[in-house]
Parts: sequence; structure tokens; C-alpha cells
Amino acid sequence: MTDLLIRNLRPLGRDRADMLIRAGVIAEIAPRIQAPGVATEDANGAIAIPGLVEAHTHLDKTFMGMGWYENAVGTDLRAMIENERFERRRQNHDPARQSMRHALALAGTGTTHIRSHVDVDTDNGLAAIEGVLQTRETLRDLVQIEIVAFPQSGLMIRPGTAALLDSAMAMGADLVGGLDPCGIDRDPKGHLDAIFALADKFGRGIDIHLHEGGELGAFSMEMILERTRALGMKGKVAISHAFCLGMPDWNRTEALLSGLADQDVAILTTGAPSAEVPKVKRVLGAGLRMGAGCDGVLDTWNPWNRPDMLDRARIVAQKNNMRSDADLAQALAVCSTGGAAVMGVRGHGLDVGCNADLALVPGRTLAEAVATGGPVALTVKGGRVTGRMGRPVDEAP
Amino acid sequence: MTDLLIRNLRPLGRDRADMLIRAGVIAEIAPRIQAPGVATEDANGAIAIPGLVEAHTHLDKTFMGMGWYENAVGTDLRAMIENERFERRRQNHDPARQSMRHALALAGTGTTHIRSHVDVDTDNGLAAIEGVLQTRETLRDLVQIEIVAFPQSGLMIRPGTAALLDSAMAMGADLVGGLDPCGIDRDPKGHLDAIFALADKFGRGIDIHLHEGGELGAFSMEMILERTRALGMKGKVAISHAFCLGMPDWNRTEALLSGLADQDVAILTTGAPSAEVPKVKRVLGAGLRMGAGCDGVLDTWNPWNRPDMLDRARIVAQKNNMRSDADLAQALAVCSTGGAAVMGVRGHGLDVGCNADLALVPGRTLAEAVATGGPVALTVKGGRVTGRMGRPVDEAP
Ligand SMILES: [Zn+2]
Ligand SMILES: [Zn+2]
Repeated sequence: MTDLLIRNLRPLGRDRADMLIRAGVIAEIAPRIQAPGVATEDANGAIAIPGLVEAHTHLDKTFMGMGWYENAVGTDLRAMIENERFERRRQNHDPARQSMRHALALAGTGTTHIRSHVDVDTDNGLAAIEGVLQTRETLRDLVQIEIVAFPQSGLMIRPGTAALLDSAMAMGADLVGGLDPCGIDRDPKGHLDAIFALADKFGRGIDIHLHEGGELGAFSMEMILERTRALGMKGKVAISHAFCLGMPDWNRTEALLSGLADQDVAILTTGAPSAEVPKVKRVLGAGLRMGAGCDGVLDTWNPWNRPDMLDRARIVAQKNNMRSDADLAQALAVCSTGGAAVMGVRGHGLDVGCNADLALVPGRTLAEAVATGGPVALTVKGGRVTGRMGRPVDEAP
Repeated sequence: MTDLLIRNLRPLGRDRADMLIRAGVIAEIAPRIQAPGVATEDANGAIAIPGLVEAHTHLDKTFMGMGWYENAVGTDLRAMIENERFERRRQNHDPARQSMRHALALAGTGTTHIRSHVDVDTDNGLAAIEGVLQTRETLRDLVQIEIVAFPQSGLMIRPGTAALLDSAMAMGADLVGGLDPCGIDRDPKGHLDAIFALADKFGRGIDIHLHEGGELGAFSMEMILERTRALGMKGKVAISHAFCLGMPDWNRTEALLSGLADQDVAILTTGAPSAEVPKVKRVLGAGLRMGAGCDGVLDTWNPWNRPDMLDRARIVAQKNNMRSDADLAQALAVCSTGGAAVMGVRGHGLDVGCNADLALVPGRTLAEAVATGGPVALTVKGGRVTGRMGRPVDEAP
């Protein structure tokens, strides 16, 4: 926790001021602060925003820095899952090193908090969990990492996975993950009972990948809501993707949204251009917490994603047809305070007393920052400078 | 038309070779070419691709370099049209200067050919056409610009516009434009009869914006096909956006696609994330020519678009769920040779005898070039270097 004086920043695009950080907390925002002896940065009129929050990614998957991964596997979900396990072994993929590269890249582009799903399966066991736990510890002062133990290869269809998830939670994972209870695991009751039992046992939350579209996804969502209610897990469940909320039947999705609001279930989106997605304005309008993420980056899944939440804000805005300055500011807020609300981060903001977790972005307004995409001039975490001009201050392995 | 030797490029990602350009034409591709006295560039193993083709944009609309345009107008199409005419006057927007900035920015990012719609309306008359004609002439050796006379504010609903379109064609516009005959002009028969009559009179083609979705767009598309057949305009009509081809009814869209193929109607896409779009593989599979464009850039319409066809290839790939290396190469091809086919450019390729219009992009494969998004190391037009490291060689006004 560090002291730092940042001169000439514009909080959320407002008038220029100086910001004094004391012991990692925002102590003062005012014109021309005097603080002799305190390290000083000049923002040169850049906009200050609360630190960006990468609320849906996979730190253990990236092949960043390992050469271009040539993808010939197509788009079938189960074929992609098999392919990934195969490539991890073939290329001797090291999740500790790779998650370091990924997390540091995010620190360079303004991110101060990360929620990462991390694979747990009967081929690779807990190796990915161990690797990301190590990265979390190493980067403790640079970026806050939350780990979701994620049964990427299925839970009921791969016996032994539930026991591994249990171990992952015991080792320090923060949340229990899940994945398409019907589409992948072919046993929605079995899958959901298993992950809710684990969450209940460890007193932790759930973040479940739900790609299932239309009525199938709606069915799984209802079963998630039933268990959330039954176990008193209000406010502790998040659904990632939630594509079924993009289906055309307004009455059907309105009923789902009201159920989600009732149980304070959070939604995480990537703004996936090729999919139906839950719309930002509608989800927020229904009173839900909503965050965003880049999903996996330079991995065996897709070649487009970048470790950059400003780039993601642009994608979310494009997908949601958000064009005005006000709309773009809202898309950007989903990528910072929105994700922080999902992760339960307290004191994430630019007020005096908040954590000194922030990013300096270029532009006259927040919208211009999203439109131009950076580079992020400075990332600050707990008063410590972690990124400059889009790059991490610390060298990646 | 210039001589140039480019060493160590990889044509479409294949093995390294040198390329000798003589008088603006690719004369030889071979290892270690000797060409004493010829200016030389070293590609350092970068991939060579045929010049990128920006096949749907609006050079006359950008506010690039005029300060961030703060947008508060919302997303209603007609409100946005009114707003743009107002802002053009309020900010004293100069279409000659602005189209120079936009076209040069494209030259910096690998583009060698541009099709630009240019506004014609009863408020601003032919000012935008004059401006872009001037830019076309000034940049004659740097980038090839095709002009579509575009009734952005409506044709039938604004009497006098048809006569202005006629004048625009007489002044040197290449194609007649059109716009949502039902949705905007409220008179599909009147609108389409007018633009087809103009195209027939000048012996030119048509490129019509068709945002209309579902059955409404299908109806307009049928009326376009009827006139294309009746006037013998096979191969001379293009439809931009064509969102109705993204509607769910497969039989309905299959009939439309077969009608379009029969008349060799080309499709231009932006891969708009928030809209239903015609899918790349399906359109190409139906035998149609297909190109892509970034649409307007930093204008009153949207804040996300960049003057960069490599960025557009990424968006098109994301929207079409194209993930494998082969799929990304296809998305990139739509953004170069695809657009060239729509514009009727001859000799656009990397074979000996082709025009020396090309771009050098980073990456091990074409997919990596799309994924990383550049910067484009070199743009070459007719053997002349027009862009370096993402920036135009010539200074913008
Ligand atoms: Zn994911
Ligand atoms: Zn357009």
C-alpha cells in the first residue's frame, strides 16, 4: 500500500484535479494538492476511471508468448474441449507461467481485478488451479484475482471431477464453476445438485457458464434459481453468458429476469458478436448486477480476444448498439464498477476513501476512450503503478 | 507507376520470397531477385496480401481531426439523419479535407481501393460530391476511390434530390446509391424506379443501403431483383448490409439468395455486431460476390468504427463465429479480393502480372494478422509505398 500524487487527472471526464493517495486509499481530490516527498505522476489531463474489472476470463488457457496457435478444429463445443486438453499436453502448457503473462497484460491495460475460471478435469487434475493460485500469490499487490474452479470438460460425464472440484475449493478457489448442465453434462439435475452442494459445503458462491440458448437455457436457468432459493444463496450466484436471455420471447425472458432479480443473481457478458446476448440496458434496468469480460485470450478457443477491457467495452457497446456518449459511458461502467459489484469488491470508485485502484485513459469524454481504445496511460492498484501506456510495469515470464 | 523490390515477404503466408515490381505491376516473385538500381524494401518475413479493399464507407462524413464529436442523439435512424445535416453546418464540416483525412488513414492501414457512398441532399447539395471528387483526384496515385451518389436524407420524401443525383452522376460519380425504399423513403416503387432510371441513363451500377429487416427487407430486395432483371443490369447491382438475409426463415432467405445469385447481385457487409447480418460462408457458398467495409468512421453515426480493414476483418470474423485459421483467412479475403470483385477491379492479387497493390501484415499465418490487428507494416499501391506501420506516408491536411 503506497502513497502517490497524481496531478491533472479528470475524474470520469470532469474538470482537472490532483489526486492524493495515502496508504493505497484515495485521500484527497482537489486542485493543486501539496504533498512534499510523495511520488508524483502527471496525468496530463487524462480521464481517471475506477480500475477495469476483467470479470470473465480464463487465465489458465492462454498460449500468449508461445507462438501462434494454428486452429483447425472448427466450432463444435465438445470438439473444442477435447482439442484443448490435447494441446495443453502437446505443447507442454504451463498454467503458472501463462496465467502470469495474461494477468500482467491485463494490468498493463487498466485492469485491477480479475475473475478467472480455471480448468479442473481428470486429465490435468489440479495443475491449472495450482498454477493460477501461484500467480495470484505472486501478483497479490498488483492485481486482485478471484478463482472459479471450472469443470470445463464436464462433471457428470467425467467421474472423479466432483472430487477434484472439492479439492480445488479446499486449496483456495473462491467460487464453484459449472457449465451447460444440459448441453455438455447431459444431466442438469446431477450437475446442478453437485455444484450447489459444493458451494454450500464451502460457504462460497457459484459462477456458471450457460451457453444454452432459448428454452433449453431457460430451463437450466430456472433450475439454477430453484437451487439458489432452496439453499438461501441469494446474492451469491452469477451466470456467465446467459445467452437464453437474448431469445425473442419478451414475456419469457422478462419472467426469467424477474426471477434473477429476486435472487440477486449477477450476469457476466462478453458481448459475443455471433451470439444472442443479454442486453446491457435491459439487464441493468431489471436491477441486476452486470459485469463483463474478454473471456479466454489467444487460446485454443478463439483468436479474436485481447487482454484489454477497453477493447471489450467497445465490443459490448457495438453488440448492444450503444452509440451516444452516455451509452458508451454505461458500457465502460459495466467493465469497471459493474464487474466490481459482481465480485463484491468494496470501495471501488473514485471518491475519497475508495481504494486507489484506477486507470488513466485518453480522450475528451469516456466515450472517446472506448472509441479509440487507449492506450491506457497508467494503471494504479492500491496506489502502486502497475501499467504504463498499455504495458505492464512488471516483466512477464 | 513505379518500380520496387520487396525482399523477404511471404505471399499469403507461404515461404519467403522477393517480389519485383516493374511499372506498377508484379513482374517476378522468386528467392533472391537481383534488380540493381531499383528502390528496395525489406519485409522481414511479413505476410503479403492483396491490397485491402474498403468496400463500404462514407468518406464525406468523418469528423476525424475535428475533436471528439459528443453524441447525444440516440439510435433512431431518421433522427440520426437530421442530426448529421445539422452538425455538418454547425461545425463547418469540409468534405474535401475530411475525405482526404479518412482516405489517407485507410492507405496507412493497407487499403488500396475504396468504395465510398457520398451524401447528396437538398440542404448541402453537391458539396460532398465535389469534396470527394477533389480527394479522388488528389490521391489518384495513392488509392483508387469509387463514388456512390447517396441520397442519405431520402429521395421521394425530399423533392429535388433526384435532380441532384443526376447532376452528381454527370459530375463523375461512379454508381447510383439508394436507401431503405420502404423504411426511409416510404415509397419503394418510386424510390427504386428513380434510382434504376438514373443508373440506366448513365449506364452505371447501383449500390443500395438496405437496413430493412425480415419481410420488409425481403420485399424491397425482390423489387430490386425485378428491376435488375427488367433493365438487364445483371452483375451491376450491389446491396449493402442486406440485414434481411439474416432473418431466421431459411427457405425464405434461400430463395432470395438464389435470386441474387441469378442476377449476380453483390453483397457488402460490415459484420455489424448488433444486427442480423448475411453470413459470410452462406453468401459465398451461394456463389455471390461479397465485400466488406468499416462504414463511416468517427462521424455523427457511431463512435466505434476505425479506418482499418484489418480491424474490420476481426469484427466480421467475430460476428460470423469464424475461429479457425482457414476461416480467418476467408474473412480477410472478403476484406481484400472480395471487395475487389464487387468493385470490378481487375488484376487484384499476388500473381505475376497483377497490379502491385498489396499490404504487408504481421503474423505467422493470415489468422494471426487478423487476431493481432496489425499494424500494417507497408501499404503499396501501384508499386508506390503509401503507408508505413499503420500510418500514411503522405501527410493529411
Ligand atoms: Zn468462459
Ligand atoms: Zn453506409
